[in-house]
Amino acid sequence: MSTPRLLLLSSSAVHGHGYLEYAATDINIFLNKNRVSTVLFIPYASADYDSYLKKVEAVFSKWGYQVEGIHKHNPVEAVANAEAIFIGGGNTFLLLKTLYDKNLIKPIRQRILNDGVPYIGSSAGTNVAAPTIHNTNDMPIVYPPSFKALNLIPFNINPHYLDPDNNSTHKGETREERILQYHGLPSEYDVFNVLGLREGCTLFIDGQVGILKGINNARLFIRGKPPKEIAVGTDLSHLLTDTLRTEKKLTP
Amino acid sequence: MSTPRLLLLSSSAVHGHGYLEYAATDINIFLNKNRVSTVLFIPYASADYDSYLKKVEAVFSKWGYQVEGIHKHNPVEAVANAEAIFIGGGNTFLLLKTLYDKNLIKPIRQRILNDGVPYIGSSAGTNVAAPTIHNTNDMPIVYPPSFKALNLIPFNINPHYLDPDNNSTHKGETREERILQYHGLPSEYDVFNVLGLREGCTLFIDGQVGILKGINNARLFIRGKPPKEIAVGTDLSHLLTDTLRTEKKLTP
Repeated sequence: MSTPRLLLLSSSAVHGHGYLEYAATDINIFLNKNRVSTVLFIPYASADYDSYLKKVEAVFSKWGYQVEGIHKHNPVEAVANAEAIFIGGGNTFLLLKTLYDKNLIKPIRQRILNDGVPYIGSSAGTNVAAPTIHNTNDMPIVYPPSFKALNLIPFNINPHYLDPDNNSTHKGETREERILQYHGLPSEYDVFNVLGLREGCTLFIDGQVGILKGINNARLFIRGKPPKEIAVGTDLSHLLTDTLRTEKKLTP
Repeated sequence: MSTPRLLLLSSSAVHGHGYLEYAATDINIFLNKNRVSTVLFIPYASADYDSYLKKVEAVFSKWGYQVEGIHKHNPVEAVANAEAIFIGGGNTFLLLKTLYDKNLIKPIRQRILNDGVPYIGSSAGTNVAAPTIHNTNDMPIVYPPSFKALNLIPFNINPHYLDPDNNSTHKGETREERILQYHGLPSEYDVFNVLGLREGCTLFIDGQVGILKGINNARLFIRGKPPKEIAVGTDLSHLLTDTLRTEKKLTP
């Protein structure tokens, strides 16, 4: 890996805040620092690209950035020319399948890892920055050719991480139970550490430095260890040097 | 289709009831009517087959049935000799992948549809009775070779169906939003109707007759129509004659 610059949001919406509002300062600092004027927006997690683009444009233009919707261009060329990339939320399966269908996995990965193009992800867009989408909460409404994703970081993400509701009578598994189920897979399965990002969490990565930002704590699941609370401001750089998984194995 | 005999439970656990307890009468009537003495149990939705078998045996033996764990036998032979089949809950992706890995999709399908072997499913076991697992709530912890499942009925199931919580500040999609997202896929995707089974719902099918049983209402999602409440006791036979999807297309 060279010097990836990533801003990974758990979600675009947080209770009491407008679209992307809670992360406005972090997004602006991130884009300004990298001298970005135009952001390439990838709306593939949704079925309605045009409405989604309008929603994103409304917010970014207020901040002084131009937004290009990838669906208005040749997608591979748009990625090759991108100054910065933003992949928004929606359905992770639909997003990943479309990235494969349009042959964008390798080009995006190369732009981020080799050329240092800044990447912003939200929800599904944060999920696909991980090695795999094995820890998404979304409904598998379409079948992607693989669960391997962009692999920009060496651990998986569970966005919208949710604490167990002790008052609930519902018997479906809690989020923690699901992640522990993943870590409890038989040994023939290769599993990753999982960072549970509660709504309002933002993971900031600049090269070998990783910091939890935002307005809410995260929860870290290292296989074989008890889950751990991560406070806003915590240095998470050690998670980026996990060399357990090789590049070769994971590049789709 | 010949005369499938199915009892599809939303879940094994319901608030205030022991394991499978809420469905005890329905299960006993179903097995007695079909003169079953031994049930073949398939624990593949869990990683710990032996503990799961013990839990199931404890309940079925109380009711006077013998239980065989498929993992103690040659699986294909066990299916060929089964008097009745029960697939329990856990992770739907792990279950479906293991059914493919052990080459059991076609054999189970044939036993149910051609030989009239009674089938009981719970949660993940109910999900895989549908044409596809596109409407599971589970985390995709493993990658199955397809989302096509046993295809014993012509519509999909969403088990543990959950109503929106109006008091929640969480911004993840509601269950209804997820199912409508599925039905809102672009036209190149082939989608199925979805029956949302709340915990405590049981779908009873005998040949061309389908009835909602159990202790809770279901919610039916027909593409392009508003979702509809289904009361316990409702005749759902019309859903079984949906010939929109061809056998050929779906048999994995």
